[in-house]
Amino acid sequence: MKPAGRVGSAVATLDGIVLLNQLDELASTARTPAGGVTRLAWSAEDRAARALISKWAAGAGLTTRSDAVANLIAELPGTVPGLAPLVMGSHLDTVVDAGPLDGAYGTVAAFAIVATLAAAGERLRHPVRAVAWANEEGVVAPPFTGSRAAAGLTVDMGALGPDGRRLSDRLAEEGGVLLPVTSAAWGPVAGYLELHIEQGPVLDRSGARVGVVSGITGARRGWARFEGHANHAGTTPMHLRADALVAAAHTVLAVQRLATAGPVAVATAGAIEAHPGNANVIAGRSAVSVDIRSLDGSALTEAWARLSQEVDDIGAQTATRATLSEVSCSAPVPTDARLRGAIADAAGRLGLATTELASGAGHDAQCLGALGPISMIFVPSIGGLSHHPDEATAPDDLVAGAEVLLGALRLADERLDR
Amino acid sequence: MKPAGRVGSAVATLDGIVLLNQLDELASTARTPAGGVTRLAWSAEDRAARALISKWAAGAGLTTRSDAVANLIAELPGTVPGLAPLVMGSHLDTVVDAGPLDGAYGTVAAFAIVATLAAAGERLRHPVRAVAWANEEGVVAPPFTGSRAAAGLTVDMGALGPDGRRLSDRLAEEGGVLLPVTSAAWGPVAGYLELHIEQGPVLDRSGARVGVVSGITGARRGWARFEGHANHAGTTPMHLRADALVAAAHTVLAVQRLATAGPVAVATAGAIEAHPGNANVIAGRSAVSVDIRSLDGSALTEAWARLSQEVDDIGAQTATRATLSEVSCSAPVPTDARLRGAIADAAGRLGLATTELASGAGHDAQCLGALGPISMIFVPSIGGLSHHPDEATAPDDLVAGAEVLLGALRLADERLDR
Repeated sequence: MKPAGRVGSAVATLDGIVLLNQLDELASTARTPAGGVTRLAWSAEDRAARALISKWAAGAGLTTRSDAVANLIAELPGTVPGLAPLVMGSHLDTVVDAGPLDGAYGTVAAFAIVATLAAAGERLRHPVRAVAWANEEGVVAPPFTGSRAAAGLTVDMGALGPDGRRLSDRLAEEGGVLLPVTSAAWGPVAGYLELHIEQGPVLDRSGARVGVVSGITGARRGWARFEGHANHAGTTPMHLRADALVAAAHTVLAVQRLATAGPVAVATAGAIEAHPGNANVIAGRSAVSVDIRSLDGSALTEAWARLSQEVDDIGAQTATRATLSEVSCSAPVPTDARLRGAIADAAGRLGLATTELASGAGHDAQCLGALGPISMIFVPSIGGLSHHPDEATAPDDLVAGAEVLLGALRLADERLDR
Repeated sequence: MKPAGRVGSAVATLDGIVLLNQLDELASTARTPAGGVTRLAWSAEDRAARALISKWAAGAGLTTRSDAVANLIAELPGTVPGLAPLVMGSHLDTVVDAGPLDGAYGTVAAFAIVATLAAAGERLRHPVRAVAWANEEGVVAPPFTGSRAAAGLTVDMGALGPDGRRLSDRLAEEGGVLLPVTSAAWGPVAGYLELHIEQGPVLDRSGARVGVVSGITGARRGWARFEGHANHAGTTPMHLRADALVAAAHTVLAVQRLATAGPVAVATAGAIEAHPGNANVIAGRSAVSVDIRSLDGSALTEAWARLSQEVDDIGAQTATRATLSEVSCSAPVPTDARLRGAIADAAGRLGLATTELASGAGHDAQCLGALGPISMIFVPSIGGLSHHPDEATAPDDLVAGAEVLLGALRLADERLDR
């Protein structure tokens, strides 16, 4: 069946076996003793991965280019002059001892689709651009370097990595010369589609094989801190205590309630400290991390205000001095209804059940939101596992996700203009 | 006024100025740069302190002796043959950067009273024994070495200190030769009185100047541990979490309720751990320390059973695997009603307000409980502070406490027989 409205002389078909083999080959270039994959941004492994992607693209007659931050880009011209590109992409870099799919999957699929279109001689109305974004994970420099640079957002070239090297030195080495980061900025895009593993358990539990991402959640992060009085656990009566760990415990539960009985989607206290931290001494100081996320910016604001009040109340109840400080804040990024529709329709035509879900993790797509409409396609993560050597998705789901991406690209080409 | 029933030719009067000067001089031999006192058991400072105590005793014509664990003992004969001794004592060793009073106060007072009686020619019916117990604090070997040895309780001579030295090597050096620890064991005592700073805020807040100790609390200590699943804080829905830190927070509050709404006097969670301990990762493992204390052994049993049930419930509610393990357990030691009465009456004759209170901290007196009736006299700790360079008690209170000890000793001599 030829989808209505598609422009071009041939109908490309994605080869699922090739896609899976490319993912395996890519992972094999960066295996760790633990059986995982470590491919830090701008590392030798990262360069080898980009060389591999370029080689595969060349096999389909496509040339790739690299920009000031080492984003890797391949583009197929469109048939209608003056239209902005439809863009697909993800990243190749990983955290330490990661799995084979986070980022790599969407990148390999994006380039495979452009190569497939090129090889088959199929042309869309829009230019179609595949991109491997540099440094999504943020291990060696603040995250989203590539997508921020493309979106014209600030990139701190002086940022130091854990090895003490500056980002500018890293990038100068990449290209042999340091180009101005502004040279990596793009113009508008007609639409951006990112295919990614879910990295959570929702799809795996739901039975749906394709997730249509409703938006990328915003986050507010900070610390609640309490100062009480360290004192002898045996000689200090309960009513004379100023127990900072009791205050911290109330806070952990208050954070949880912001999601279970409050306005945000998820709320997490993952880190806690108590000083002096001896079993027979009442804690005099404590700190609890706060991480709340929501698709709704006003829900984030409401939840933070509620927590601020609760932390004050907890301080008063426990005779401790309480403070809530914010460390970072990012706004939610909505996805585009037309792109969500294109994804859902493409999946429907392939007979795949879909479900809408928010992305609780950050993705390059959120930066691309500055340039045009975005959406994302998720495939199930078995057991919800990610950032772990055992990260996995069923091969059928990997192939299906890439087919949905190709189908959604074609539908977006028909439905969107810019 | 000559108290009724006292035997002897003279009526001794304690010199408060001498007592305060002796405390100052003792502290000055072990000052730290932080302004505190560090006198570890069997250290050069500890030996110097014992030499000073012996010198002061000699000034009153008393000889002192040292036993297999370096307890220092002075004894004044009684007038009635065959009676067991009345014993007063405390310890000279301290924790690191302690104050000048914990242990030293009761020890100096005990020897000052024996010296005062000796110098004045006053004899009681019972022999009167003053003792400086070795290693109460437990910094360089398990605590209560001296009082355990006297009480005939087990002493682990192979115990290693933080410097890697064995207790037996330490003790061999003390006396030039290692004596069997059993040689330090005593027979029955007619009564044991220990004068000590409270190390808590009760007296300081109550306005009473003398505390009559109702008993030494028993303690149960252990850890509650939870195993959940470490997971992404953004992508894991609340209802699919197994958050070990949420479980730990519930436990901190459950421990607190064992005292605020439960059977024990005090209950403390002072230490907490969460792994991996990152702000954006749900904790997969956690541990909370538990320390509960009570004068009532059955209350300790009841509270521990209640906590065990609560920890199980918390595990079920949070989808974590929960365990509660016990690390140590000590039984409460009651004080003797006749000795409590002697203390209260002695204080009353001096016009001092008293209050009964339990000792939440451990003391050598609890080991002496194996040999006969015991009680303790507390004086106010300013601000409840102890194990700290700023540990202090008003000079008037220090003198008053020693006078109460002398008065209680005389009343006990009249009222107790053994």
